[in-house]
Amino acid sequence: MEEIRKTARERMKGYCRVCPVCDGRACAGEVPGMGGLGTASAFTANVDALAAVRFNMRLVHNVSEPDTQIDFLGTRLSLPLLAAPIGGVSFNMGGKVTEEAYIESVLGGCSDAGILGCVGDGVPDFIHEAGYAAIKKMDGKGIPFIKPWEDKAFYEKIDKAIAAGATWMGMDLDAAGLITLKKMGRPVSPKSPEKLAEMIERVKMPFILKGVMTVSDARLAVDAGAQAIVVSNHGGRVLDHTPGAAEVLPEIADSVKGRVFILADGGVRSGGDILKFMALGADAVMIGRPFSVAAVGGLREGVCRYIEGVAGELRSAMVLTGTERADSVHRTILRRSRFEGICYG
Amino acid sequence: MEEIRKTARERMKGYCRVCPVCDGRACAGEVPGMGGLGTASAFTANVDALAAVRFNMRLVHNVSEPDTQIDFLGTRLSLPLLAAPIGGVSFNMGGKVTEEAYIESVLGGCSDAGILGCVGDGVPDFIHEAGYAAIKKMDGKGIPFIKPWEDKAFYEKIDKAIAAGATWMGMDLDAAGLITLKKMGRPVSPKSPEKLAEMIERVKMPFILKGVMTVSDARLAVDAGAQAIVVSNHGGRVLDHTPGAAEVLPEIADSVKGRVFILADGGVRSGGDILKFMALGADAVMIGRPFSVAAVGGLREGVCRYIEGVAGELRSAMVLTGTERADSVHRTILRRSRFEGICYG
Amino acid sequence: MEEIRKTARERMKGYCRVCPVCDGRACAGEVPGMGGLGTASAFTANVDALAAVRFNMRLVHNVSEPDTQIDFLGTRLSLPLLAAPIGGVSFNMGGKVTEEAYIESVLGGCSDAGILGCVGDGVPDFIHEAGYAAIKKMDGKGIPFIKPWEDKAFYEKIDKAIAAGATWMGMDLDAAGLITLKKMGRPVSPKSPEKLAEMIERVKMPFILKGVMTVSDARLAVDAGAQAIVVSNHGGRVLDHTPGAAEVLPEIADSVKGRVFILADGGVRSGGDILKFMALGADAVMIGRPFSVAAVGGLREGVCRYIEGVAGELRSAMVLTGTERADSVHRTILRRSRFEGICYG
Amino acid sequence: MEEIRKTARERMKGYCRVCPVCDGRACAGEVPGMGGLGTASAFTANVDALAAVRFNMRLVHNVSEPDTQIDFLGTRLSLPLLAAPIGGVSFNMGGKVTEEAYIESVLGGCSDAGILGCVGDGVPDFIHEAGYAAIKKMDGKGIPFIKPWEDKAFYEKIDKAIAAGATWMGMDLDAAGLITLKKMGRPVSPKSPEKLAEMIERVKMPFILKGVMTVSDARLAVDAGAQAIVVSNHGGRVLDHTPGAAEVLPEIADSVKGRVFILADGGVRSGGDILKFMALGADAVMIGRPFSVAAVGGLREGVCRYIEGVAGELRSAMVLTGTERADSVHRTILRRSRFEGICYG
Repeated sequence: MEEIRKTARERMKGYCRVCPVCDGRACAGEVPGMGGLGTASAFTANVDALAAVRFNMRLVHNVSEPDTQIDFLGTRLSLPLLAAPIGGVSFNMGGKVTEEAYIESVLGGCSDAGILGCVGDGVPDFIHEAGYAAIKKMDGKGIPFIKPWEDKAFYEKIDKAIAAGATWMGMDLDAAGLITLKKMGRPVSPKSPEKLAEMIERVKMPFILKGVMTVSDARLAVDAGAQAIVVSNHGGRVLDHTPGAAEVLPEIADSVKGRVFILADGGVRSGGDILKFMALGADAVMIGRPFSVAAVGGLREGVCRYIEGVAGELRSAMVLTGTERADSVHRTILRRSRFEGICYG
Repeated sequence: MEEIRKTARERMKGYCRVCPVCDGRACAGEVPGMGGLGTASAFTANVDALAAVRFNMRLVHNVSEPDTQIDFLGTRLSLPLLAAPIGGVSFNMGGKVTEEAYIESVLGGCSDAGILGCVGDGVPDFIHEAGYAAIKKMDGKGIPFIKPWEDKAFYEKIDKAIAAGATWMGMDLDAAGLITLKKMGRPVSPKSPEKLAEMIERVKMPFILKGVMTVSDARLAVDAGAQAIVVSNHGGRVLDHTPGAAEVLPEIADSVKGRVFILADGGVRSGGDILKFMALGADAVMIGRPFSVAAVGGLREGVCRYIEGVAGELRSAMVLTGTERADSVHRTILRRSRFEGICYG
Repeated sequence: MEEIRKTARERMKGYCRVCPVCDGRACAGEVPGMGGLGTASAFTANVDALAAVRFNMRLVHNVSEPDTQIDFLGTRLSLPLLAAPIGGVSFNMGGKVTEEAYIESVLGGCSDAGILGCVGDGVPDFIHEAGYAAIKKMDGKGIPFIKPWEDKAFYEKIDKAIAAGATWMGMDLDAAGLITLKKMGRPVSPKSPEKLAEMIERVKMPFILKGVMTVSDARLAVDAGAQAIVVSNHGGRVLDHTPGAAEVLPEIADSVKGRVFILADGGVRSGGDILKFMALGADAVMIGRPFSVAAVGGLREGVCRYIEGVAGELRSAMVLTGTERADSVHRTILRRSRFEGICYG
Repeated sequence: MEEIRKTARERMKGYCRVCPVCDGRACAGEVPGMGGLGTASAFTANVDALAAVRFNMRLVHNVSEPDTQIDFLGTRLSLPLLAAPIGGVSFNMGGKVTEEAYIESVLGGCSDAGILGCVGDGVPDFIHEAGYAAIKKMDGKGIPFIKPWEDKAFYEKIDKAIAAGATWMGMDLDAAGLITLKKMGRPVSPKSPEKLAEMIERVKMPFILKGVMTVSDARLAVDAGAQAIVVSNHGGRVLDHTPGAAEVLPEIADSVKGRVFILADGGVRSGGDILKFMALGADAVMIGRPFSVAAVGGLREGVCRYIEGVAGELRSAMVLTGTERADSVHRTILRRSRFEGICYG
C-alpha cells in the first residue's frame, strides 16, 4: 500500500496530500479538491467522533476465526463494506486518471474483493456516463447514486441506470446543498416526504437514501419506502458544523434498526472503524476518500489491496473484542466514550 | 473574494494577517491592531462558542427557496445582518485606506446589498466625523454608535449624529473598559440604570445598547427603554476571559426575547454562523472584522461581494436545515452542543 | 515594560525565555531554571485553571472608580498583591544580577507601589542572607519565608529574621519535597500538626503557611495557629500532576474563609487573574515568576512598573464586572466555568 | 541519565526518537519500531489517562521516610515495579545491541536495584532463547512471558522456561492480536476460560496473565486460577482505540482486588506515575519502553540508574502525599480527575 499511496500523492498533487492519517485538517476548505467545506469541521467531526469510540479489549474467549460476511439487500458481501459514490476525478483529484479508469477500478477492485462499489453523479454528464458504463461492464455489480434533481432529470437518469443493468438505486439527498449546481441551471433540492415516496415508488428496485443525519429524517425515509439509508454528512462537503456520523448513528439506529438497512459513512479509515460503526448500530459501512486514493494510486489492484488491508484489520479487531460474526455485533464491545452524547458500557 | 483578501493582506500588513480562518489566535494581544486583548481568550471564545454549535442536517422537507429578509426597527433588511461599528483605520488597520473611504465603503456596500452598516466612534474626532459624513451622504442609511462618554460629550455627539440624518442611535457601552480614553482626558464609564434611562429618553429615536453579556444587564437595558441590545464582548478587546457571545446568548434570549430586538456579535464568519446565532435566539447579527478586511481590500465593491457570499451560505444552511424564514428560526435545527452550558436537541 | 522584558530575555538566556504568555509550556522540566518539574503539568495547571475561569461582564452600574486597597495582617496594601518568595538568582535566573540587587529590587519596587514583597530561602546561605539584609534596609518591609528545616536550623533562621526586623514570618512547607536539600545534608520535611503548632507558637508573630492544596491541610493550619495560608503548589516545582491553585481554592475558601487570611499563588499573570482569585475566595494573591522577570530586566523600577501595569488591569476588570472594593469581591462576577470542578453562576 | 538517553538516541535512530516525554505522538504507527499501532491512540491513551490523574498534595503530617517495598508472589521487591517483557531488539530498537546483551542488562539492572525483570517472546526463537539464558545466568531472577501459542508450542516453551530455572510464568494474552504471527505459521489466539484454566493447571507455578482490560476478563482470569493479572493494552501495539490502562484499572481493582495480584502497565514514566497506579488499585506496576531506552543506552548500569531515578521520584511523591507504605496506598491521595470515568476525592 505504501507504494500505491506514494503514486497517489504524486498524481493528486494540489488536490490531496494523502496524509498519514486522513483527518480533514490539512485540506480544510479545499472544495473542489478532497477537503471539507468551510472550516472542515463536519469532516473532522466524522473522524473525531469515531476516534472517541473505544474498544473493550477482551481475550478470554474462543473467537479466533471471525466471520466478516453480511447480506446486503439480497446479495452476499465478504465484508460489511461498500465504496462510497465519488465522482469528478478531474476537478477533485487532479485528473491524472480518467473518469472511466477511475470508476472501473473502484467497481472492479470491490468485485475482486467480494464487496460492492457505488457510482457518483454530477455535472458534467461524463461522470455518471462513465459510471453507468462501468456498471454495465461489471454485469450490474455497482450501485448508481443519483443527485436529487428535479423530477424529469431524476427519472431520466434512473432509466439510464436501469438500462446499464443496475439492480439497486441510490440518491445522495445530502447533495441538495450544492448551490453551484443550481447556478449551472441544474437545480437539486430537498425532497418532501410525498415526493420521496413517489420517487421510490417509480424506481421499483431497492432504494438507498444517503444523507440521513437525524432521527426524524430516518423515520421519514422508512415511511417513504427506502430499503436502506446512509447516515452521512456527505464527507463534510455540504454543510459545515454538522456532527460526525458516529455521533448521530446510535440514536438513529435505536429508532429504525430492523426496519431498514442502515449504512454509515464518514471518517472510516481502518477495519477497527468499521467494527465501531457496526457496534454503534450500522448494518454496513461506506468508505469514501481512501478508496479514491487507492484507485488513483493503484487502479483496480490498488482498490483490492486496500480492501484486503482493511479486512485484516477488521478480523483482528473482531478477535480482540470477541466478536464472532459481522452480522451481529454487540454494543458492549465499546467502552463508554469520552465523546459527549455517546455513552455505552 | 480571494483577490480582495490578498489586497487586504498587503494593505493591513503589521495589523492583520487576514488568516484563512479569522479566529484570534495569530494576533493574540495585538491591541492596537485587530487582535483580542491580553491572551485573546475573549476573542477566541467568540469563535469557539459558535464552532461548538452544530446543525441537525435535515433534507426530507420542501424548503428550497428560503426567505432571508427581516424587519429591523422599522426597516426591511435583505439579510439578518449589520456591519458592526468599527473605526480607527489608521491605528488598527494600517492606514492604507482613509477613514472616509473606509466608512463610505462599509455603508455603501451594505446599502448595495440591502442591509445596514454601523459607524464607530473614538479618539481622534475624525473617526466619528468621517462616519457622520458618510451617513449624510447615504441619506441616513447608517447607524452611529457613540461611546459611553460623560453626559456633555455624549449629548453633543448625539446632536451631531441627528444633524447628519441618523434615525437610529447606538451606544457601545462595552467600550467603558477603555482606560486609555480616560488617560487622554476623555473618560468613558459604565452607566447606572437611571443614567441609561435618562440618555435613552434624551435620544428620542430607536436606541441600541451594545455590550450586553449577562441576563441582568439585558433586563436593565429593557427597563431603561432600549429598543435593541447587542450581545457582544466588543470582539474580545476590552476584558480578557469573558465567555463567547454564543454561550451567553441563549439565556439572554430566554429572558428578554420579544421585549427587545436582540442582535448578537462576535465570531461570525459565515452564513452558517448567522443561522446559528438566530437559532440561539438572536433577531439579527453583526459581523465585525471580516467587514474591515472586505472594505480595506475591496472598498465598496468588496463589502458588497462579501455580503453576497455570506448570503449564499446562509441560504444554503437554511435549505439544509429546513428553515423557511429568517424571522422564525427554530432552536431544534441545532444539535446538542459539545460546548458546556449550551444544550439543545 | 517591553524594554524591561527584552532586557530580561537577554539576561535570563538559558534560564527563562520570557515568553509572550508565561504558561510553563516551553520550559517544561527545566529545574533548575524557571520551569515546572517533570512534565510541568502542575505549572500549566495553575495557568489553565485560572484561564478556565471567566467573567460576567457587567456595565449597567455606577462603579467607575474602584477601590483596590486591602488590609493584610495589620498593614494596608494598595493592591491585594504580594511578590512571592523566590531566591537563587544564580542557578535559576542566569546570575547576571546579584542576589542582593535582585531581592532589593523586589522589596523596593513593591514598597514603591504600596505592596509587600517576600524573601526566599535555600542553599547556599547567601540567599536568605541577602534577603534579610534587604528587609533590614527596607525597615522591615518584607516577609521572610523559611523552608521546613529540622528544628534547630528552622529556629536559627527565625532568630536571624527577627534580628533583621521582620514582623511577619512565613514557611514554604511546599518545599518539603526538595529531596536535593536532604542529599546536601540539609533535610526538609513535612510537619506534623503538633510540630507545626509548636513552631508557630515559638515564632510569636503573624505566621503564614505556604503550600496548602487541600481542605484538610487548611484546617490543620488554622488549628495550629497560622494567621495566613497560601494556596500554592510551589509553582509546579515540587510535585508533578497537582491541580492548579484556582481549582482547589474555592473548596478551601468554603472551609476556612474568615478564620485565616487566604492567599492564593500560581499562574497569576494579569490584573484580571488577581480579580479571579479574589472571586474564588482569596483575600490576596501572590505573583511569582513575572516579578523575577521584572526584577532581572528592570530592577527596582521594573518591579514598580510591573505592579502599576497589573494595577491598571485590575481596576479595569473591577469596573467591567461592577466590583467596587477589592476587599469584598463576589463570586457572582464569575461565569460558570468550563473547568470541571469549579462551577459558579 | 542524560548521557544514557543520548547514547540510546544514537543507537535507536530510525526506531525510537527518545523524546523528552515518551508519549507515543512522534512515533504513531511505527510498528515495527517502538510506536503504537495505527493512530497510536491506545498508546497515547495510556499516557493521557495517567496524566489526567492528579495528586492531593498534603504536607501537614509526619511521613518523611516512606517504605517503598512490597511482596510480589513470594518475593520481596525494593519497589512496586517490574520491567515489562519486551524483546526483538533487532527489528524494534535498531539492533545496535544484541538480544543477549539487552535482556541481560534488563534482568541484571533490575536485580541490582532489588526488583524483577520480565523476558519477552516471539519470532524468531532467539528472542526467548536469549531471555531464558539470561534467567539461568541470573539464577532464576526473571519472569518468562510466553505468547498465547497453540497448545504444543506453548507447553514446549513452558518446559524450556522451567529448565532455565523460572519460578514464575507469564502469558501476554494481549499478543493474540498479532496477525503477522499467524501468517508466519505460528498462530496465537485468545483462550477460552477452560483452555486458560488447563494451561494454568499445567504450569504449576505462579501464573501471571497479561492483557486484561475489562472486568469480565479479570474475573475469568481469577476463576481460571491466575495468581496475578496485568492490566495492559500491550503498549497500544495490538488494538488501536482501546482505553488507557489507568482508565480501566479502578473498576477492575474494585472487582478483583485481594483475590489476585494486580499489576498495571501502560504509560508509566515517573515515580509519580507508579504512585498513581497504586492509588488507582494496582499492587505493583510494569514499565516498558523507558527500560528499553535505558538498556540500549546504558546497558546494565543504565537500567539500574533508571530505576534509582524512578525510586527517588516515588519516595518524593509518597512524602508529598503523606503516603507511608507502598503496600497500602489510599485512593484519597488522588484528586477527582478531569478524565471522565475516573472520579475520586
